Amino acid sequence: MSEYQIMVKKFGGTSVGSIERIEAVADRLVSDYHNGQRPVVVASAMSGETNRLVNLANDINPRYRGPAYDMLLASGEQVSISLLSIALEKRGVKARPMLAYQLGILTDSLHSKAKIHSIKTDKLRGLVDEGIIPIIAGFQGMSEEQMITTLGRGGSDTSAVAIAAAMELDTCEIYTDVPAVCSADPRLVKKASELTELSFSEMMEMASLGSRVLHHRCVELAAKYKVKLHVRSTFETREGTWIMREEDRLENPVVTAVTHDASTVIIRLLNLPLGTEVLSTIFTALAEGEVMIDIIGQGQANEFQRLSFSITEEDLHRTLDICKNVLGNEVDVAYDKDVAKIAVVGVGMRNHPGVAAKFFQSIHEHKIPIHLVTTSDISISAVIGREKLQDAATSLHQSFGLDQD
Amino acid sequence: MSEYQIMVKKFGGTSVGSIERIEAVADRLVSDYHNGQRPVVVASAMSGETNRLVNLANDINPRYRGPAYDMLLASGEQVSISLLSIALEKRGVKARPMLAYQLGILTDSLHSKAKIHSIKTDKLRGLVDEGIIPIIAGFQGMSEEQMITTLGRGGSDTSAVAIAAAMELDTCEIYTDVPAVCSADPRLVKKASELTELSFSEMMEMASLGSRVLHHRCVELAAKYKVKLHVRSTFETREGTWIMREEDRLENPVVTAVTHDASTVIIRLLNLPLGTEVLSTIFTALAEGEVMIDIIGQGQANEFQRLSFSITEEDLHRTLDICKNVLGNEVDVAYDKDVAKIAVVGVGMRNHPGVAAKFFQSIHEHKIPIHLVTTSDISISAVIGREKLQDAATSLHQSFGLDQD
Repeated sequence: MSEYQIMVKKFGGTSVGSIERIEAVADRLVSDYHNGQRPVVVASAMSGETNRLVNLANDINPRYRGPAYDMLLASGEQVSISLLSIALEKRGVKARPMLAYQLGILTDSLHSKAKIHSIKTDKLRGLVDEGIIPIIAGFQGMSEEQMITTLGRGGSDTSAVAIAAAMELDTCEIYTDVPAVCSADPRLVKKASELTELSFSEMMEMASLGSRVLHHRCVELAAKYKVKLHVRSTFETREGTWIMREEDRLENPVVTAVTHDASTVIIRLLNLPLGTEVLSTIFTALAEGEVMIDIIGQGQANEFQRLSFSITEEDLHRTLDICKNVLGNEVDVAYDKDVAKIAVVGVGMRNHPGVAAKFFQSIHEHKIPIHLVTTSDISISAVIGREKLQDAATSLHQSFGLDQD
Repeated sequence: MSEYQIMVKKFGGTSVGSIERIEAVADRLVSDYHNGQRPVVVASAMSGETNRLVNLANDINPRYRGPAYDMLLASGEQVSISLLSIALEKRGVKARPMLAYQLGILTDSLHSKAKIHSIKTDKLRGLVDEGIIPIIAGFQGMSEEQMITTLGRGGSDTSAVAIAAAMELDTCEIYTDVPAVCSADPRLVKKASELTELSFSEMMEMASLGSRVLHHRCVELAAKYKVKLHVRSTFETREGTWIMREEDRLENPVVTAVTHDASTVIIRLLNLPLGTEVLSTIFTALAEGEVMIDIIGQGQANEFQRLSFSITEEDLHRTLDICKNVLGNEVDVAYDKDVAKIAVVGVGMRNHPGVAAKFFQSIHEHKIPIHLVTTSDISISAVIGREKLQDAATSLHQSFGLDQD
């Protein structure tokens, strides 16, 4: 084994969002390097750049998501890794910018949402052994046909974890613009606190329920390959949040965090014919249209049944189109945008009864009407009126003992 | 042989400078395609993009021109070829954006000024046979070490000619924002006319003497591989200027064009010690500093010698630094920016005496002082006062019978 410590470090778009920030990241890497680390860097595109490129593509054809779209988007990371390499070379540290094809990040051929098949590590290890810092373009891969692919939302985090896993490392650092994962969004809940530890399953649940710190897929991969994630600030040196296996954690609190998603919409179909055939038809059509269904509620009244379900706002127009296509004009399709989803998450609730009781008590005390409810083994979520979101979050945060002193 | 006509078509930065222009280029390509052509497209970066990227790099380190610089700049063409491909796919024509490594454009490892060694054409021919339009990133290549390289100024034109040569084609179309190569810059000489034909050697001479339509290297390559160049407008359908071998031309006029370069500077060293050693020392140091020396004049006065030479303005500060380093404080280094170079070019002058006489008569009639003069077998050039540039150009254009009716 080598004497130095290899560490995969992923820097997000805001961390490399300007020349000044790129220079600051370079300073930090040089300091880590001189302190005995051997960084393997994964970078996102400069903040705003991917959106700029998406807009250019959409100006021509918003529906096209084939190979040329992926080649277009992949140019964003090519720029940021080149600049970061130039900044490191200026500081007298050798750096090597690497695109997916140069490193050997092989994926399937599903353009704009490819999955990583394998990563070659021999070249990477060779560079590290020579004292060169590899600066790898996140978010991109190469298909068997030698075409550039991209990994979809949260892609650079996924790249970083996959590289750490391929190098058989037990940790991966995710540098971002927040100092840690919090027990609730501090903009919503004043007494929110920074979490020092979190389990993979909680982080995945939080990502599904609206937390935007890490994407579900990256955490899933980290859990699968037992790569601890360290989410921390690019702009501060103190530690942030460690995300790890439940069994490695000292303590698993009943509830770890309150999560919300303000971009929720409820769709209501009030006069559906009875029977399960129509339900199957609707959800099949929505699945084919790639609409993510969140919580479903169903009830019966006389000769009709009612169906309501929540989706994210960006899928709203597509969902309405599909419902009208499938159901024709006889069924009333209504939607409500003034809602939000609130949830509590914690692996400890598996062994603690009474969490649901406390959840509903807390909501009830504030007279907050609930539209839809669902539970998993480690979460309870509800769709409520959006104007009550802050009350609900603050109340739940307090009830479950998460308030900071 | 196949029935269709394969044609390499190069589009410059202004031709793909906006979404509207990219859509217009796509329309044109689709029309060519349906008229029986099989286009092989080479594109530059969107106008302004390469400068934006150069500025980002310079903000970190203006002296760095290594591999990361080339990777950075190469992203510009990656964007334009992706967008052009999306625009073609929208029109129902299959397109394949191709980067240098995907096509197999192999170069040496001289980053930021690499030279092409070889181009693989099997993949290209396969695509064309399938009816797919290859959209190739100009300006870039790949070194043996699998690093991205760039070809320096005029690189995309060079890429296009090299691809046409590798495919053994006899023509290459260069689409640009002017309709043709002119007998003089129309902004300077009102009676300038569009040239229908030009020889390779004339075009190379014009490029060396200040014409910016095509880079010297691209014409040199075209001459070597006997690839006729057709310079024409992206925005009009009529033909432009054909650049070809002298022996293929119907007629070779004595003088074909008047060329100028307003970014000329004269350096004057007035009190150099006698002898050739000091001259050798100066020019060796300037060559090592990559200063391009243009015209040289030298004379003797008592115990000193005078040296003057012209350079382009962008090399001025470097030149002054080098002269001071080499010569110390005893030699006076002066420079004059208020000058310009004017030249007449024509392969016919090889067989026609009296061209120099007519050149100097024309200059003399307008009482234009001459600072430096030089000739080649197909050109006569002089550095004159910049304020006299228009007079000189207009007068020479008229004297050599180039005025449009």
